[in-house]
Amino acid sequence: MDYIDRHGTAHGFPAADAEAQVRADDRGHVFHSWSAQALIDPMPVAAGEGSTFWDFRGNAYLDFSSQLVNLNLGHQHPDLVSAIQQQAGRLSTIQPSLANDVRGELARRIADVSPEGLEKVFFTNGGAEANEYAVRMARQVTGRRKVLSMYRSYHGSTSTAISLTGDPRRWANEGGDGSAVRFFGPYLYRSAFHATTQEEEGARALQHLEQTILLEGPATIAAIIIETVVGTNGVLVPPPGYLQGVRELCDRHGILYIADEVMVGFGRIGEWFAIDAFGARPDLITFAKGVNSGYVPLGGVVISERVASHFDRVAFPGGLTYSGHPLACAAGVATFEVFERDGILDRVRDLGARVVEPTLRGWLETHPSVGEVRGRGLFWAVELVRDRETREPLVPFNASGPDAAPMTAFAAAAKQGGVWPFTHFNRMHIAPPLVISEEELVRGLSVLDEALTVADGYAQG
Amino acid sequence: MDYIDRHGTAHGFPAADAEAQVRADDRGHVFHSWSAQALIDPMPVAAGEGSTFWDFRGNAYLDFSSQLVNLNLGHQHPDLVSAIQQQAGRLSTIQPSLANDVRGELARRIADVSPEGLEKVFFTNGGAEANEYAVRMARQVTGRRKVLSMYRSYHGSTSTAISLTGDPRRWANEGGDGSAVRFFGPYLYRSAFHATTQEEEGARALQHLEQTILLEGPATIAAIIIETVVGTNGVLVPPPGYLQGVRELCDRHGILYIADEVMVGFGRIGEWFAIDAFGARPDLITFAKGVNSGYVPLGGVVISERVASHFDRVAFPGGLTYSGHPLACAAGVATFEVFERDGILDRVRDLGARVVEPTLRGWLETHPSVGEVRGRGLFWAVELVRDRETREPLVPFNASGPDAAPMTAFAAAAKQGGVWPFTHFNRMHIAPPLVISEEELVRGLSVLDEALTVADGYAQG
Repeated sequence: MDYIDRHGTAHGFPAADAEAQVRADDRGHVFHSWSAQALIDPMPVAAGEGSTFWDFRGNAYLDFSSQLVNLNLGHQHPDLVSAIQQQAGRLSTIQPSLANDVRGELARRIADVSPEGLEKVFFTNGGAEANEYAVRMARQVTGRRKVLSMYRSYHGSTSTAISLTGDPRRWANEGGDGSAVRFFGPYLYRSAFHATTQEEEGARALQHLEQTILLEGPATIAAIIIETVVGTNGVLVPPPGYLQGVRELCDRHGILYIADEVMVGFGRIGEWFAIDAFGARPDLITFAKGVNSGYVPLGGVVISERVASHFDRVAFPGGLTYSGHPLACAAGVATFEVFERDGILDRVRDLGARVVEPTLRGWLETHPSVGEVRGRGLFWAVELVRDRETREPLVPFNASGPDAAPMTAFAAAAKQGGVWPFTHFNRMHIAPPLVISEEELVRGLSVLDEALTVADGYAQG
Repeated sequence: MDYIDRHGTAHGFPAADAEAQVRADDRGHVFHSWSAQALIDPMPVAAGEGSTFWDFRGNAYLDFSSQLVNLNLGHQHPDLVSAIQQQAGRLSTIQPSLANDVRGELARRIADVSPEGLEKVFFTNGGAEANEYAVRMARQVTGRRKVLSMYRSYHGSTSTAISLTGDPRRWANEGGDGSAVRFFGPYLYRSAFHATTQEEEGARALQHLEQTILLEGPATIAAIIIETVVGTNGVLVPPPGYLQGVRELCDRHGILYIADEVMVGFGRIGEWFAIDAFGARPDLITFAKGVNSGYVPLGGVVISERVASHFDRVAFPGGLTYSGHPLACAAGVATFEVFERDGILDRVRDLGARVVEPTLRGWLETHPSVGEVRGRGLFWAVELVRDRETREPLVPFNASGPDAAPMTAFAAAAKQGGVWPFTHFNRMHIAPPLVISEEELVRGLSVLDEALTVADGYAQG
């Protein structure tokens, strides 16, 4: 692997001059997401292919975070690259009020794999906007304003999306109109309901949600938004029956159910939409990331007939210049073709059940720092603790700086071993590209296994 | 010109089968921006090149709206297409927390053409998000929440952006936290201040803004956001001194000045940033559209040192998966190269002053429906009226359906003549690609000249 600059010149590794230029431009002019700008040192990336990316020194990293859990088909998938190149040569963009072939084809394909009764797609540029517009639809249809969301959730960073978010990224953005209300979702390992089984956790979480609805006033609530499997905040797989219970509560109170599948849709757990694994039918499904692996910014909302028909004769009050962007949609159509041709959903389920799950369950035996493992398909969390009895997290909630040292040390060990890990608070997530080879998966897990000994050093023996 | 489908098959025009498929997919599955879904009939577009696009029947349209005023370098510009194809083959995407060559290069180039002291760029997926994040920065830096914006403005459709918007697209989205406050901007033709000269209009508009600031409470106001030249709401060019006066008011009261250049930046009036023509220095400039002609979704915020340094040691509380998307940035870098090589800014100024302005001024003599023409570069408004004395608009404010018939008839005549016009309320805007040839420009203007006779039919003789 070389670094090929944009003039086509190949630089063998290490490519010090090229790296210096990238660093200078970045530090001089790029303002980064979620960061104190003077305290970061972004690593320049030279190239990517499949499940691997390279820095300018020639170090290879197995990408166990799929970047931000968006690169479902891996780096530089040849079919996606070629679909983008072809579409760029055909028609890069056209405004949303006109009709376009790939935009329509992708909408049809998404509708085809959506639960029955969800037939239309509103395209956005990403997941945050998808949630913004889903909430807007729900408010318009119900004439209500309040939206319920979970603690321990992330729904994006634009105004409405961040107000619904249930993690600390919201904190600096408080001060909205009071229309966001949070409740506790099921999370047996750290149960808010003193439950001891998944069944009990699910039932009690539903009781809690029902109480919240009653006390907030059902007639004030437009929607409940839930990540079908909670993503960054813990890969929290809902107990059997929970999401069906949510659907039932929504039906009873005229509330719309929005399934946020920005992170978990398009194969992450081995389903087109994760909701397929849980037998509930949302009114709106939001997506982004995996729809085209983020090769071109794209998100959207899949809309039920009930919601869509409201806007048959009433204008939907929202829109954007790049809605249904042809270049983005072309990469989406290619994604469907690859998923179908290569049996991606099957291989995700297979690799998850046959390789990841047994390996992670093994860590419960061998690593004192591993408190729980949970997940599905190629989406897993490993909960790291100081003490398996008390379940005290390896680092405090929302730790940073020296408080986060054990996690920082663990992540450094993983990178040292050639795996780029996803860590959040006291957890490591496992979310490699869905095209990862079994050999790479096994190799990466073994690096993480080794790196866990660093975490073990902070845990009770 | 043919329609080439995505499998590479060429269809000569008319391409009825292909068109039927596009229509079926669109009507069945695509949910459109700002529309009552059953009342629209989106025209399928088969191809585009330069300033022209084609439907499936072979009708060619000169694109006098640059789609949504984003296609500054026209349809399928070979340099942008090739930059996208190359970057797709190099590295389509990488997460925002890592450093990337084209992301850094584009940020540097944008900083290079920005007013002095604006050195950093936060990238988003589009203009709405750019305004969202600019406002967030202003709130964080000032510790204040309120934001002032103009009536007759558009700042995007996500929650904060739409709440700041001063046109009817906001109406269905009311119900925020009361932090958006609107004021009247300068608009001599329909002066809110009973002014009779541009100088008077500018001075009185500043007095009005100052009064608004004082009565709202300067210490409660984080920012004032202004489209440097108001776009969709009228191509309102600020009177000399107005924006400098805004800057001065902001300085006096510790308020940040956000220049929204989503529509007008990157050459539309013959400047990199329109603000360069008005001698004021904003704290934040937002952009999108022209930065890469919308070939790949991209927007952003150019950040002054004052604002950027606030986040040197305090984390900026915002971000997005596709911030600084390499594919989008590569098209941005190519945009700079084309602008520089082909002298785009000079040709915009030249064509505007030499071709557009005299032609439009001529219409004041020949068309009773033309009440005023105004603009700069390749961005002009023609204000259509029933009566030049009373200035009664050709159609009522925010008219639709039968009330809008005169404008609908005018637009139909333009399309019939082969020009795709931009119309809004009682106005036609002229906003062709900046690469339009002089011959095309003259031809298009002559079609519009002819179509104006339709508008004349509704006006006092």
